[in-house]
Amino acid sequence: MSTSAPTAGATATVVFQPDGKRISVKTGLSLLEAAKKAGVGIRSECGGLGICGKCRIVALTKSGLSPLMEIEKEHLTKHDMKAGYRLACCSRVMDDVTVSIPEESRLETRKILVKGLEKHISLDPTVHKIHVTVPHPVISDVRADLERVLDQLGGLSAQLEIDLNLLQQLPRTLREAGWDITLTIWNGQRIIAVESGNTTNRVYGIAVDIGTSKIIGYLIDLTTGKLVNVESLENPQIIHGEDIISRISSTMRNQEKLEELGKLAVEGVNRVIHETCEKASIKPRDAYEMTVVGNTAMHHIFLGIQPKYLALSPYVPVIRRSINLRAKELGVDINPTGNIHVLPVIAGFVGADAVADVLATGIYEAEGLCLLLDIGTNTEVIVGNKDDILTCSCASGPAFEGVHIKHGIKAVSGAIERIRIDPRSYEVTYKTVNGKKPIGLCGSAVVDALAEMLKAQIIDWRGKFNEKIDTPRVRRVKGLTEFLIASKDETGTGEDITMTQEDIREVQLAKAAIYTGCAILMKRKKIVEDAIEKVVLAGAFGNYLNPVSSKIIGLIPDVSTKKIKFVGNAAGSGARMALLSRGMRETAQAISRRARYLELATDPDFKTEFASAMYLPHRNLNRFQSAKSVSK
Amino acid sequence: MSTSAPTAGATATVVFQPDGKRISVKTGLSLLEAAKKAGVGIRSECGGLGICGKCRIVALTKSGLSPLMEIEKEHLTKHDMKAGYRLACCSRVMDDVTVSIPEESRLETRKILVKGLEKHISLDPTVHKIHVTVPHPVISDVRADLERVLDQLGGLSAQLEIDLNLLQQLPRTLREAGWDITLTIWNGQRIIAVESGNTTNRVYGIAVDIGTSKIIGYLIDLTTGKLVNVESLENPQIIHGEDIISRISSTMRNQEKLEELGKLAVEGVNRVIHETCEKASIKPRDAYEMTVVGNTAMHHIFLGIQPKYLALSPYVPVIRRSINLRAKELGVDINPTGNIHVLPVIAGFVGADAVADVLATGIYEAEGLCLLLDIGTNTEVIVGNKDDILTCSCASGPAFEGVHIKHGIKAVSGAIERIRIDPRSYEVTYKTVNGKKPIGLCGSAVVDALAEMLKAQIIDWRGKFNEKIDTPRVRRVKGLTEFLIASKDETGTGEDITMTQEDIREVQLAKAAIYTGCAILMKRKKIVEDAIEKVVLAGAFGNYLNPVSSKIIGLIPDVSTKKIKFVGNAAGSGARMALLSRGMRETAQAISRRARYLELATDPDFKTEFASAMYLPHRNLNRFQSAKSVSK
Repeated sequence: MSTSAPTAGATATVVFQPDGKRISVKTGLSLLEAAKKAGVGIRSECGGLGICGKCRIVALTKSGLSPLMEIEKEHLTKHDMKAGYRLACCSRVMDDVTVSIPEESRLETRKILVKGLEKHISLDPTVHKIHVTVPHPVISDVRADLERVLDQLGGLSAQLEIDLNLLQQLPRTLREAGWDITLTIWNGQRIIAVESGNTTNRVYGIAVDIGTSKIIGYLIDLTTGKLVNVESLENPQIIHGEDIISRISSTMRNQEKLEELGKLAVEGVNRVIHETCEKASIKPRDAYEMTVVGNTAMHHIFLGIQPKYLALSPYVPVIRRSINLRAKELGVDINPTGNIHVLPVIAGFVGADAVADVLATGIYEAEGLCLLLDIGTNTEVIVGNKDDILTCSCASGPAFEGVHIKHGIKAVSGAIERIRIDPRSYEVTYKTVNGKKPIGLCGSAVVDALAEMLKAQIIDWRGKFNEKIDTPRVRRVKGLTEFLIASKDETGTGEDITMTQEDIREVQLAKAAIYTGCAILMKRKKIVEDAIEKVVLAGAFGNYLNPVSSKIIGLIPDVSTKKIKFVGNAAGSGARMALLSRGMRETAQAISRRARYLELATDPDFKTEFASAMYLPHRNLNRFQSAKSVSK
Repeated sequence: MSTSAPTAGATATVVFQPDGKRISVKTGLSLLEAAKKAGVGIRSECGGLGICGKCRIVALTKSGLSPLMEIEKEHLTKHDMKAGYRLACCSRVMDDVTVSIPEESRLETRKILVKGLEKHISLDPTVHKIHVTVPHPVISDVRADLERVLDQLGGLSAQLEIDLNLLQQLPRTLREAGWDITLTIWNGQRIIAVESGNTTNRVYGIAVDIGTSKIIGYLIDLTTGKLVNVESLENPQIIHGEDIISRISSTMRNQEKLEELGKLAVEGVNRVIHETCEKASIKPRDAYEMTVVGNTAMHHIFLGIQPKYLALSPYVPVIRRSINLRAKELGVDINPTGNIHVLPVIAGFVGADAVADVLATGIYEAEGLCLLLDIGTNTEVIVGNKDDILTCSCASGPAFEGVHIKHGIKAVSGAIERIRIDPRSYEVTYKTVNGKKPIGLCGSAVVDALAEMLKAQIIDWRGKFNEKIDTPRVRRVKGLTEFLIASKDETGTGEDITMTQEDIREVQLAKAAIYTGCAILMKRKKIVEDAIEKVVLAGAFGNYLNPVSSKIIGLIPDVSTKKIKFVGNAAGSGARMALLSRGMRETAQAISRRARYLELATDPDFKTEFASAMYLPHRNLNRFQSAKSVSK
């Protein structure tokens, strides 16, 4: 059902006390909306319809707000009105104004655990439930079912929209429920469920991170903001290729492949929904909202959008901004009229996961410059703070996921995850996942291996084996030099685990790609390492990485180790924040709009930078002061 | 994609010159919207997005509008700005203000032919097309497809929503079209089509009147407002009963019946769409908007909403207000992303057709009181003017459609439509449809017959045959008295055509039902016949009725014949107005909200009034001064 056409207007400044936060907004905007934009949490349980009366504020300046409305008088006493109390949802900003938010109107904030960081955000989900008892129709009151329900809500509820399928069910639901129902309202603008009796204690949401390898689901109680359950599953698209490019290629051949991949993504998401809900004894129908993050390719495929132009120069996505969809439109198994909010992307290879990373880590509001790396087959690199966000994507390849490394494996049980090499005896000590017998090298071990070999001068700064070294661990097999890490009598596979000259080359290519991204962004930002206040490593791999080894091989810029933070799945945390808070969605949208994208492949410095970064740690050792003693 | 939650605010008065029309609106509203509300036509080809620059107005008061926006400067010269020119879509009303609308910004008005009345309305459809040439993506410009298109529109287009299916097709459409496309925008808020090349000359809409018996479709060119073609078909639901109640009853037995009836309604509408388009060589895809009117039962069934509570006391509808739907949601064969606008209803038996009647006849804005009758199996009676609209529904039954009348038929070829009886010789003269041999009596003839028999004192004011009358035309057949209208040697059926005592009783019941509605509404409005300035007869039957005969038998109140207007299918005209003008939709909504509904069956005066109205013309002859000489 229609709303008026959009229009634009003048601006005014609102100051929120006692914090003193200020924001410039278009006149005509409600204080509630203005507060949300300013990141100031004001309570509201009706989505701004003047129904709940919880958004009480005090006007501190005489003018600047629209006059008192009739519906406000239902919630305010004469004493309140004299004292300047207003409802934030009913007060429009007409001119510069200062308001105070009393304690009782402040939104409780929820702690979101982003590993290594901590964010407090206001609980302000898009979904609210309202329990209403509706008078039966009688001959002296023959209002239509829908208008009868809406009249009961009061306030501005006549503007609420409703989907046809709910309208079709409405007469039966109302009568079967004996006119005692609970309405679920989305974003103060649409009725998305009509349920029998009082179900206000059941309001759930799910945040989903669709990764190339894994799909993770976070089930959240939207009445408290608490995390109820987390589950993760392998992305079933994996049968069409481990990496993004091979999946995109498969869709380019025919349209059905795109549909098949899309269906697999939705199936995967549905499996995650069912598992997270089932284990918590919650019905998926009681989840009314889902937020989704993922790289741009996963984002497009999930939405049934052809991703092929992501893989063809100039690599443009089809849509950047966020999208809201009905769950049933995509076949997602939350409440069918529930909403799917897909976060915005930045560019063809900087996706909604990167936006969520920035959101979760708070880079967008940081004073000091941060460098964020989300390492994967494609590594997103972001340099920025509150003033500017510059992004790029590096084709780092799957070496750190164990692919193209002779004994490379994922971080499964028995994977070697840490390695030390004695620089005198060349003896190797290592640590495996779960302490099992070693069966291969995971990404962090590969990085350690290179760093330790470099320190022990087993390899030189070009990554070549030192021919003068004298240890049986360095040997030639079938014309290829390799270093023995674990011999077959100690491994779980009965085979030697080694690192070959070719493996070293793969790691060099991967780390050069990532470092080149960092270096070029820093160059474009005209900064050096010292200007970076924090290096944030996001993603599963980042979590296991040894920061010292990383610096020794030149994977990341040479910053003080204590500046390095590991934040785990920040993309998932960002998706959760967007689920809990409408303001966070607007922030995500603003991040996507503000962020600049740099295409590395066509940067004039790319080739030189990449060639220099192939060295361990780098051809220009001035950039790696801390590694100077180790290398060359 | 979401918009902000609704809020409310202060009000201000806008005066539009040179007409001097004034309206009080909420501050923050754009002048374009305010003009629409005031019924003042301002041109706009972009739906208020600041794109087209056609909505130029001149501010005559210094303050009262929001400050000049950047996008306005794209359309206004320095000279314009000095002279006070603004774009109406970009100027928000902040305080009382007077503006002038120059000639070039005035909407052309279109004449809508409502038979016997004439309405001029401003052409302001919801659908607009914009042709854009979009720059190709290159490595130095990697904006996403959607944002690239929206950026090209400028203005406020970033707020435009788009459906998922269009988004899915967007990359292919853009590239196949060589980035030269036409966007169709609905109500300035949603992209509903993306087409290759320039298709701005093809914008059609269809207005549909779903009657119990017939479905009528009006195909309209929305670029000019001109009627291109009209077609009507029998409502295929007729296989489930001729009247509404039997169709509702069939849905009460099982849900599948409801779905079947709904499907039949949609199929009927689709056949009308295809026929109207085909004969005009227009593709149904090029119709982007459809407006629908119908009685409340047809309205519910078309929307797949259970109509059973319309037939059960207290006869409440499920929804009153208007609805906008995607064509594909209902399976309607206009452009699948196109919009279906279903007009609002008033009550269980006063439907969207009655709202359209009021809209088309202009009763809602009339100074003097009007009495509107839309005669059918259910007859809607409406008394009102600009200050108040009071409605009721009368169970008049199908007598005027020929049902339950021994020789009753519809107004087909050969139906007797006019009758005169010589009061001395009792000879009958008649007129048939198309001058064919008579085959039966249609509704208007039945009314004539009663009036003429009354005048000739063949029957008395109780409807009984006068036993003293001496003519072979009055005879007893099988114990029942009847009057011979046409003998078998002159008819096309080879049988006598007569009017029996039972027929007379049926007509008395029907006319009593209708008159009772009129009488009770007048009583509740505390008015007598003289207060009525106009009696409007709408609907197919009304068109053929002899007003004098109608007054003689007391079917309608006794007003001067020159006050009686026949308006034909006013409901269809109302649907066309809503298709041509967004303002008319708001008016329809306001009519539905304002109109009061009176339940006749439970009115304390109903029984007495009905019993009195069974007399010809009425027990109380003071109400029928003009018939006094005829009756008793």
